[in-house]
Amino acid sequence: MNFSSDTSAPAHPAVLEALAGVNNGMQPSYGADEVTARLRNELTRVLETDDFDFWLCASGTAANALALSCFCPPMGAVLCHDEAHIARDERSAPEFFTGGGKLQLLPGEGAQIDETALREALAGIKPDFVHETPAHVLSLTNLTESGTAYPAGRVKHFSALAKDAGLMVHLDGARFANALVSTGASPAEMSWKARVDVLTLGLTKTGAMGCEIIILFGSARQKFNELKARAKRSGHMPPKMRYLAAQAIAMFADDRWLALATNANQRAREISNLLCRDGQTELVHPVEGNEIFVRLSESNLRALTDAGATFYPWIGGSHRLVTSWSTPAGTVERLSDLLA
Amino acid sequence: MNFSSDTSAPAHPAVLEALAGVNNGMQPSYGADEVTARLRNELTRVLETDDFDFWLCASGTAANALALSCFCPPMGAVLCHDEAHIARDERSAPEFFTGGGKLQLLPGEGAQIDETALREALAGIKPDFVHETPAHVLSLTNLTESGTAYPAGRVKHFSALAKDAGLMVHLDGARFANALVSTGASPAEMSWKARVDVLTLGLTKTGAMGCEIIILFGSARQKFNELKARAKRSGHMPPKMRYLAAQAIAMFADDRWLALATNANQRAREISNLLCRDGQTELVHPVEGNEIFVRLSESNLRALTDAGATFYPWIGGSHRLVTSWSTPAGTVERLSDLLA
Amino acid sequence: MNFSSDTSAPAHPAVLEALAGVNNGMQPSYGADEVTARLRNELTRVLETDDFDFWLCASGTAANALALSCFCPPMGAVLCHDEAHIARDERSAPEFFTGGGKLQLLPGEGAQIDETALREALAGIKPDFVHETPAHVLSLTNLTESGTAYPAGRVKHFSALAKDAGLMVHLDGARFANALVSTGASPAEMSWKARVDVLTLGLTKTGAMGCEIIILFGSARQKFNELKARAKRSGHMPPKMRYLAAQAIAMFADDRWLALATNANQRAREISNLLCRDGQTELVHPVEGNEIFVRLSESNLRALTDAGATFYPWIGGSHRLVTSWSTPAGTVERLSDLLA
Amino acid sequence: MNFSSDTSAPAHPAVLEALAGVNNGMQPSYGADEVTARLRNELTRVLETDDFDFWLCASGTAANALALSCFCPPMGAVLCHDEAHIARDERSAPEFFTGGGKLQLLPGEGAQIDETALREALAGIKPDFVHETPAHVLSLTNLTESGTAYPAGRVKHFSALAKDAGLMVHLDGARFANALVSTGASPAEMSWKARVDVLTLGLTKTGAMGCEIIILFGSARQKFNELKARAKRSGHMPPKMRYLAAQAIAMFADDRWLALATNANQRAREISNLLCRDGQTELVHPVEGNEIFVRLSESNLRALTDAGATFYPWIGGSHRLVTSWSTPAGTVERLSDLLA
Repeated sequence: MNFSSDTSAPAHPAVLEALAGVNNGMQPSYGADEVTARLRNELTRVLETDDFDFWLCASGTAANALALSCFCPPMGAVLCHDEAHIARDERSAPEFFTGGGKLQLLPGEGAQIDETALREALAGIKPDFVHETPAHVLSLTNLTESGTAYPAGRVKHFSALAKDAGLMVHLDGARFANALVSTGASPAEMSWKARVDVLTLGLTKTGAMGCEIIILFGSARQKFNELKARAKRSGHMPPKMRYLAAQAIAMFADDRWLALATNANQRAREISNLLCRDGQTELVHPVEGNEIFVRLSESNLRALTDAGATFYPWIGGSHRLVTSWSTPAGTVERLSDLLA
Repeated sequence: MNFSSDTSAPAHPAVLEALAGVNNGMQPSYGADEVTARLRNELTRVLETDDFDFWLCASGTAANALALSCFCPPMGAVLCHDEAHIARDERSAPEFFTGGGKLQLLPGEGAQIDETALREALAGIKPDFVHETPAHVLSLTNLTESGTAYPAGRVKHFSALAKDAGLMVHLDGARFANALVSTGASPAEMSWKARVDVLTLGLTKTGAMGCEIIILFGSARQKFNELKARAKRSGHMPPKMRYLAAQAIAMFADDRWLALATNANQRAREISNLLCRDGQTELVHPVEGNEIFVRLSESNLRALTDAGATFYPWIGGSHRLVTSWSTPAGTVERLSDLLA
Repeated sequence: MNFSSDTSAPAHPAVLEALAGVNNGMQPSYGADEVTARLRNELTRVLETDDFDFWLCASGTAANALALSCFCPPMGAVLCHDEAHIARDERSAPEFFTGGGKLQLLPGEGAQIDETALREALAGIKPDFVHETPAHVLSLTNLTESGTAYPAGRVKHFSALAKDAGLMVHLDGARFANALVSTGASPAEMSWKARVDVLTLGLTKTGAMGCEIIILFGSARQKFNELKARAKRSGHMPPKMRYLAAQAIAMFADDRWLALATNANQRAREISNLLCRDGQTELVHPVEGNEIFVRLSESNLRALTDAGATFYPWIGGSHRLVTSWSTPAGTVERLSDLLA
Repeated sequence: MNFSSDTSAPAHPAVLEALAGVNNGMQPSYGADEVTARLRNELTRVLETDDFDFWLCASGTAANALALSCFCPPMGAVLCHDEAHIARDERSAPEFFTGGGKLQLLPGEGAQIDETALREALAGIKPDFVHETPAHVLSLTNLTESGTAYPAGRVKHFSALAKDAGLMVHLDGARFANALVSTGASPAEMSWKARVDVLTLGLTKTGAMGCEIIILFGSARQKFNELKARAKRSGHMPPKMRYLAAQAIAMFADDRWLALATNANQRAREISNLLCRDGQTELVHPVEGNEIFVRLSESNLRALTDAGATFYPWIGGSHRLVTSWSTPAGTVERLSDLLA
C-alpha cells in the first residue's frame, strides 16, 4: 500500500505502447515532427477550440516557470496562494525564469485564494509607482495543493477580477484531470472558457511517463515565439519531441486521462471514508481529488504503519495520502480489512 | 536517405524495451528509485571509477548549462571555441543558467581550440582585476562541432593548461560515443583520466529517446548538491526518473552505445568516401565521427537532390550530412549506385 | 512644514565643504584614492575594530541588494520582516541581484520580527530537501520600517538564533544613526558585537548627499572580492570614489552623524507629543526614531492640511510624518501654535 | 604629469558650486525635484528637441547596462565592437542587466566596427530560428575605445543599416563631448539626427563629479517607465536626485562641457605631436579625442618614466596616455622640455 505520491506510479501501458508505435523512421527534431502535429489535432478536439498554441516539456516545474516567464517581467509579480506549488515546491524556479520577478502570496482555506484577499491585492496594484513590484499574473492551481477543486465558475470569476485589473491568468494543472473529474467541468470550461490565458496541463501525475503541456489561448498566443525561445534556452526543447507528443496522444485517446483520474479520485474517496469510519480520524480538507489530508486517529496510524503503508507526515501532525491511476480496488478492500 | 541529423533518428529498440521493463510498481520519485541506483553501478563499470556523481536530464542544452552554472559564477567566464554548441546553438542558455556569465570565444581549425590562443587567453586572466570577467571554466566539445575528434591526449593536455591557470574543465559530450570510437579512447581516458571535471555524456544522438548524463568527477563532486538544486529550479528534475535511467542502462548494456556509434561513424566514412570519389567534392573537415562537412561537386549535389536526400546547407556553400545508429548499410549501397 | 521624508532633506553643509576639500588634483579611480583610505581610518575608529572591509554606493537599495547577493545564492532565501524595505520598496532588487533568490517573509509587531515566527522559520529549514528554498541570510532593519528600534541585545539574540541555524546576518541600517541614538548603543554594539556579518550603513537619510556603506565583518570579509565584482557589474563602482568617501568622513567627523540623528529623533518625539495632546490622536507605533506613524484626529488632520504641511497617508487611514537633521526647532513651535 | 585616466581628474569647480547652489530646502525625492525639471529644459536646448526622456545615474556601466536592458531581451543579443567597453570592461554588466542576453562581437580598425562585418552580422539574423540568439540592438561607442571618433554621418549610416534589420541603436557616449568637439557635430547631429534611439551621455570623464545621462529619443520613449523600474531595482534611483541634476546643469551651462572637452582634446593632440617628434614613436591609432595610444620610443619611455609620469601599458607593448579638462597647458610645456 503505497500512498506516497502519484509521481511514484508507473506509466499506463498504453503510453509505452504509444512510444513503440512512433519509434520508426526519421522525424524532424524539436517539435516539427508529424506526431506532434497529430497531437495538435487531438488537443483541438479535447479543448474544443483551435485558438491555441502549445509546447511540451518533461516537468511541471518547467511548465509553470516557462508559462509565467512569458507574462511576468523581471520587475513584476505573480499573485498566487501562499501554499502554491510555485511558491513552496519549485526551488524559486519562477524567480529564476522571470529574471528576478516576485511571487505575492495570498491566504485562503484549502489552498484556494480568499476572494477578499484577492480583491485587496488587485486594488493595491500601482503600476506607475516605481518602488513597488506590481502583479502581472494571477496563478491558480487546480486541483489545489490541498486536494480541493475550484469549480470552473470560481476560476472564471477570479479570472474576471484579475483581467479587470489588467492581469493575465495562469492555471497550474498538474492534476488538471483530477479537477475536471471532480467538478464535472470540461477541459474548455476549466480553461479558455474560464478566461485562463495559459494552462499547464499535466499528464505525468495522471499516468504519463513524463509529459506536461503548456497551452496559450487567444491573445496569449502572441507569446508563442517567446515561449519557444525561453524553452530552448532553458533546455526544454527536447530534440526527439515525438516521444513526448506520443504520450499525450495516448492519454487523450478515448479520454483515457479522464478515466485514469476517475479511478484515482474514487480510490481517494473510498479510502478517506474508510479512515474516517472510526469517528476519530478527521479530514483536514475535503477530499475533492486524489489527495487525502487527514489527522489520523492513533489506531488508524498504527494500523497503517504496521501494514507497511507508505505515506508522508504533513504539517501540524497531519498526514497526506495520495492515490493514482494505478491504485487498485483491491487496495481499498485490504485497507477495509486492516482498519476493521 | 535522410542525413539531416542524428537527433531525427528513432530510439534503438532496446531502449524502448528497457522502458517497458521498468514500468511496473511504485518507485520513489526524483531519482531515489532503484533503476537510477542500478545506473550508478553501470556507470561505475563504464567509467572505471566510483569517484563520481551524476544527474540525468532530457536535453544537451540543459546538461551543458547546468554543468557550467556549477563552476562559472555570474561574474565569471567560460572559455570555449567560437563555434561551440554552447556559444552558437543554445540561445544563450549558459548566460541564463550562470546568472549572466560570459562566454569567451577562441579560434581554431575544425572547431578545435588553437593551443596558442588558449595559452594567451589563460595567461590573460587577471582574477583580481575587477573590471574584466575572468574565465573559470574551459569547455571542450568532443566530437567537435565540425565532426573532428580531439584525441584523449589533447584533452588531457588542454586540461592541464587550464588547471594550471585555476580553471575547471567541462567536456560537452553530445557525441561522446562517436569520439570514443573514433579515437579508440576509453570513457575513462577521455574524461577523468584526461582531468575533465564535469562531463555531459549525451546518449540521445547515440540512440536513446532522450537522455543526457551530467557527471561530476573527484573534487567537482562537492557541487553535487548545488547541481541538484539548480536542476530542480530549472525544471530538470523529472519526477519519474526511472525512465531516464532505464534508457542509459540499455545503452551501456553490452557496450551498445559504442556499437551504435561505430555504425554511425562507419557509415559516415563510407559515404564521405563515395562523395569524394569524383575528385571534385572536397571535405571541409576530416570525417572523424558521424558528421560530414563537405563542398559537394555540382553533379553530386544534383544526384543527391534528385534522389530526395535530406541534408542541410552549411556555411560558405558547403553542406552537412549526418549519419546515425540507424543509418543502414543499404543506404551506402544505394548512394554508391546513385553517384556512379 | 515638510514631513514627507528624510530623503527630501538637503545635505548638511559640512558634506558639501568636504566635497570641495577633496576636489583638487588627480586621484586613482574606483576606490584606490587616498580619501577612501582615510575613510577606512575613520571607520576603524567609529566601529572600534579593523576587522572589516567596506564598499561605498549611492543608494540604499543597491547597498542592501549587493550585501544580500554575496550571501544568498540563487537557490537560497533571505528571512526578513513582511514589511521590510527589501521586500516592499525595492522593486525586487534582492531577487535581481541574487539571480532569482527568494525573500521569506515573517510577521511581527512594529516591523520587528516575531521571535516565535523566527524560531519556526529557522527550525523549518531543510538544506538537503531539494524542492524547497532554504534560508541563508537573516535580514533585520534598524531603525525598522515602522520607526521602532531593536535594542542591540535583541539584534544579538536574533543573530545568535540565526547563526545556530547556519545563517548569515544582514542589518539594513538606512537609519542606523537614528537607531543608535534611540537605543544608546554604539555602532560596534549594534553591528559586529551583535554578530552582524554585513551592515548597510546609510548616511543619505542622516544628512549626506548620497552615501551608503556596505561593511563586511570578520569571516564575511572573505566575500570582499566578490562584493567588488558584483558592485562593478551592477554599475556601483563610481569612478571618482573620493566624493563618496568625503561625504562619509564629514558625517563621522566629531560624530556629526549622531548629532544630526539626535536632532531628527528629538523633533519626532516633540511633534508626536504635540499631535497626541488632544487625546484623540493615536500613535500606531511607538516613536523611537525620526518617523511618526499616527492615526490623526480630524481636527489635527485639518490643522496640518490647512497649514500646508506635507506628509503621506499610510495604511489603514493612518499617516506618516518624518523628521530629519534639517527639521528646525522652530517647526515644533509653529506646530504647537497651530494645534493649540 | 598624470595621464592615467580622465576618471582620475577632479570635478570642475563650477560643478561643486552648482551642488552648493541647490543645497537648500526640502525637495521631492527620486527625480521629482525642481532641479531635475530644470535639467530637462537645459537638455531640450542642448539636444534641439523635446522628444526625449532621460534618467540620471552615477556610473557609465550602469548607464550602458540599463539602456541595453530596455531593448535587448534575455534571449537576444547586442552587436558591438570586440573592444567595446560593454564587452571588455564592465564585468558582464550587460549580461546581468539583460537577464542573460549576449554580446555579439564585431571586428574593425580603431575600435570602429567594420562595415562589411556589420552587414554580414545583420544579414545573418534569423529571428525565427529558435536555436540562435538574434541581435536586437547595435551599440556604438563614440569617442571609441581606441580614441578615434566616428563622424556623425557614419553613425547615421550604421544606424540606418541596423534599423533596416529591425534593430535599435545605442550610443555609448562616455566621452561624447570629446567626440562632438573632434568631429564638429552638434549633440543632435550625433544622436537623434543620426537615428540613435538611446544615448548614454557621460559627463563624469568630461568634468563632473559623477553624472551620466540615459536619453531615450522618439519611439524609444515608450520604454521610459520600464527604464525607471529597472533603475529602481538595480539601485540606480538615488533619493536625492537634485545633486545629479545640478552637476549636469553646470556642465551644460555656457556649453562648459564642450569647452572642457576642447581643452582635453587639444592637450592630447599637442602631447602626441611632442611624443612623435623623435621619428621613432608611433601612434597606434589617430588621436581624435583625449586619448593617445602610442608605441613609445625607448628614449621617450625613459624620459617619461624618469619624470614620474603616470600612464598605463597597453596591448602589444604600446601605452595609453589620457588627458582631461584639468590637464594644464603647462604640462605640455614641461613635457616639451623633458623630451627635448
